[in-house]
Amino acid sequence: MAKRSVDRFRDAALASEIEFLLARARAVGIIHANEAFVALGLKARSYSVLSLAASGLNPTQRELADFLSLDASQIVAIVDELEQAGFVVRQPAPNDRRTNVIVATDSGLAKHREAQAAAEKAEGESMNALSASEQDALRELLTKIAF
Amino acid sequence: MAKRSVDRFRDAALASEIEFLLARARAVGIIHANEAFVALGLKARSYSVLSLAASGLNPTQRELADFLSLDASQIVAIVDELEQAGFVVRQPAPNDRRTNVIVATDSGLAKHREAQAAAEKAEGESMNALSASEQDALRELLTKIAF
Repeated sequence: MAKRSVDRFRDAALASEIEFLLARARAVGIIHANEAFVALGLKARSYSVLSLAASGLNPTQRELADFLSLDASQIVAIVDELEQAGFVVRQPAPNDRRTNVIVATDSGLAKHREAQAAAEKAEGESMNALSASEQDALRELLTKIAF
Repeated sequence: MAKRSVDRFRDAALASEIEFLLARARAVGIIHANEAFVALGLKARSYSVLSLAASGLNPTQRELADFLSLDASQIVAIVDELEQAGFVVRQPAPNDRRTNVIVATDSGLAKHREAQAAAEKAEGESMNALSASEQDALRELLTKIAF
């Protein structure tokens, strides 16, 4: 991001709107996350899908779309990519064999552990303007909005 | 968003990561903003561009892209759309006539005032889980990350 133009617009009315600030904070986070994930062959979005596939919660593609606020077509593309890389499989749900769920393979679980460490590091970089207690406060406030 | 799948994944490790929570909070905000803007012929993104065009700060397209964390091609498309609707014009910068800046027309300024009121209402809906002092705290924390 070009610091000069940022400084110039800091007093614009838009810069005090929470929605704009959320978008910018998210953009900062995506930049750091994608940098951290590139060596692992992942991006911010595929990391989220892999993380839920590795959770033991057996998400369906529809549930992934709902939870991650993405279109069904975006989820299909990400799951395809992760499946081709050998990190997840589509398999019948244990309690309803007509429904497929997305489950991490052993290789996907190992990749997820690596990616979780990278995500934690990236989050530290994105949040380096905040103290640990400020980060906790932010997590708590965002959780109230998100759920 | 489907509440049922949300509840099911709340204890997933991903749900405690700030980056994920930012993405979800932003998604909640976009839904409310787009609902509020639809009657005005705007979306969350075009509102941001119109807001800066109406700020008196004479942004260039490159500055809009930097500040709003969007691709140059996305900005061009949004400015085209706002120009066709008569809300902004591209005109030479006062101090450098080789550079074009994006400026709101009188009709764009009026539309922006309406849209600002709609944005404020939408923000209230998105943030209704937070008290006024929590919203102020969130604004302060996000500003530290965003700038």
